[in-house]
Amino acid sequence: MNLKQLSELLGLSQTTISRAINGYPEVSEETRQRVLKAAKETGYRPNRAAQRLATGKAGSIGLVMPIEPNDSSDLHFAEFQRGLAEEALRHDFHLVIMPASPRDEEQAIRGLVASGSVDGYYLAYMREKDTRIAMAKSLPVPFIVHGRSYGTDNDFPYLDVDNEGAFRDAARLLLQLGHRRFGLLNGPEEFDFAIRRRIGTVAALKDKGIDLDPGSMRHTAMTDEAGYRGMAELLEKPDRPTAVLCASTVLALGAVRAINRAGLKLGEDISLIAHDDVLPLLKPEHFTVPLTTTRSSLRAAGIRIAHRLIAAIKRTQPQPPAHELWTTDLVIRASTGPAPT
Amino acid sequence: MNLKQLSELLGLSQTTISRAINGYPEVSEETRQRVLKAAKETGYRPNRAAQRLATGKAGSIGLVMPIEPNDSSDLHFAEFQRGLAEEALRHDFHLVIMPASPRDEEQAIRGLVASGSVDGYYLAYMREKDTRIAMAKSLPVPFIVHGRSYGTDNDFPYLDVDNEGAFRDAARLLLQLGHRRFGLLNGPEEFDFAIRRRIGTVAALKDKGIDLDPGSMRHTAMTDEAGYRGMAELLEKPDRPTAVLCASTVLALGAVRAINRAGLKLGEDISLIAHDDVLPLLKPEHFTVPLTTTRSSLRAAGIRIAHRLIAAIKRTQPQPPAHELWTTDLVIRASTGPAPT
Repeated sequence: MNLKQLSELLGLSQTTISRAINGYPEVSEETRQRVLKAAKETGYRPNRAAQRLATGKAGSIGLVMPIEPNDSSDLHFAEFQRGLAEEALRHDFHLVIMPASPRDEEQAIRGLVASGSVDGYYLAYMREKDTRIAMAKSLPVPFIVHGRSYGTDNDFPYLDVDNEGAFRDAARLLLQLGHRRFGLLNGPEEFDFAIRRRIGTVAALKDKGIDLDPGSMRHTAMTDEAGYRGMAELLEKPDRPTAVLCASTVLALGAVRAINRAGLKLGEDISLIAHDDVLPLLKPEHFTVPLTTTRSSLRAAGIRIAHRLIAAIKRTQPQPPAHELWTTDLVIRASTGPAPT
Repeated sequence: MNLKQLSELLGLSQTTISRAINGYPEVSEETRQRVLKAAKETGYRPNRAAQRLATGKAGSIGLVMPIEPNDSSDLHFAEFQRGLAEEALRHDFHLVIMPASPRDEEQAIRGLVASGSVDGYYLAYMREKDTRIAMAKSLPVPFIVHGRSYGTDNDFPYLDVDNEGAFRDAARLLLQLGHRRFGLLNGPEEFDFAIRRRIGTVAALKDKGIDLDPGSMRHTAMTDEAGYRGMAELLEKPDRPTAVLCASTVLALGAVRAINRAGLKLGEDISLIAHDDVLPLLKPEHFTVPLTTTRSSLRAAGIRIAHRLIAAIKRTQPQPPAHELWTTDLVIRASTGPAPT
């Protein structure tokens, strides 16, 4: 059974049948049910290319993959992409990935949209006052932002994690445990998430009259090596911190190695809380001393972004930009303990 | 300076200029050099969409991303994709990724090619007698296989690692160290790489009159959890192995945890060699007891596959299928030692 035959059988145009099967809103619910029933009974399997012609959509989500010359693959990117792909598969969408060096991201997005090969896209790795948002608003296809942009009005559709709240709560827990000397191993300082995590940490300490010394902060790439170096430097300070907040379990992997090399005991001599993106290989409960974490699944975020974007692509009427802010779980494990006396 | 202006300046058609800049073979080397020089002097930056029109190519590589319902993101896939994207960026190509459940991979490739959105693609996660190869030969765009397909003639373009040789050499080293009881933590048994690694291991042992007991082999997903369970099971056997070969540093991560939990010393009570795909987060030298490995970079393979595929896309004359077989490095670290007496 092909589309033409199904069309003749039902007395409906091929376009109507394709739109019905793909859930586009121009088709009444009654017709849709009739088409789906007939497709099931006759064993009809839609042909992708014919569908695309009928709906006028490429069936694809675009994204930019940032490539720095000496970077390695990014577990955070991979886990988010996995969620995106899972949801895309459920809707028979594919992904169009434009690799670009970070300074060419705007041009990469413009190229994706101009090529007509994507129906919508998302922006990620958001920076302070990010100029891509104004550009995205000017382009003719739907978009959604993963994160926000510090210093920019929030008048765009986004999904973000409450990074400020997560690190404020984590710092408060450490304060309650009696810690007074803090360290912060953060992501690159131009990124919105890193700015908000710093703000949350600084605010919690300020409430107790403690200033976070800039020398106790590191803004680095989110790698194992950077975590090792950052923690090793903090431990060499004359009044080394007894409590460290860490922006990723990847950074924590290196940080814990530095703690072990220094002969210190995690959870006793030094407490550590890491942000857990729920990366499959870095389960905080699998560390020798299980890590206390602020937790929010990057894969779930990927699924949700794809879901919202595909809904926006299929919608005929624009909607006001939807804002979602996910709170994190603070999960207590053995890496946090009372401040050493 | 836009394409039209450059065309008028040089007295060449816009098509010729685009082809010259993109390295297509229809343009003489002399003309190409003239165009590149003028582009540089005038600061001309090519417009993607215009280029695509002129060359008739989408400028994209297609691939299928296998999605199992309960899988997590795959570090091996991510690292390979990273290499692919790096090389794609150098040639101004993008990636079109079709998520598909493993049983629908053939249909996904057919869909990608039929959509006209990819100029070439590659096949991965190859199985024994893989039917995708015959399909790929029948489709009208270039392809390359990452891996091979056991039981199928090698009359297709491929890049593979010498998996059989790698595990034969690893097993021989352990035999020379006096080990006689072996275990093998392998990938899923339907995959070509797992078949060849098993063959290499079995052959090396057979040479010394040792049979590898099927109960000492595990064929599992390449995850941390599967490595833990597999090793825990091997250690519970009455005559547990003193030497274990492991198909990935990801499996080794779990396997080493099981060794530690059992109170055994890696490199003394039990020796372990893992295959190292050079995953950035799982450096074998960062394990508490650094791992002996067979090493071959997945990222380098991604770069090479993209390079060959883009060359095939730009070529006007088909060439005989090129075969590349990469040997691995056997890197000795502390996880291998003499068999315990």
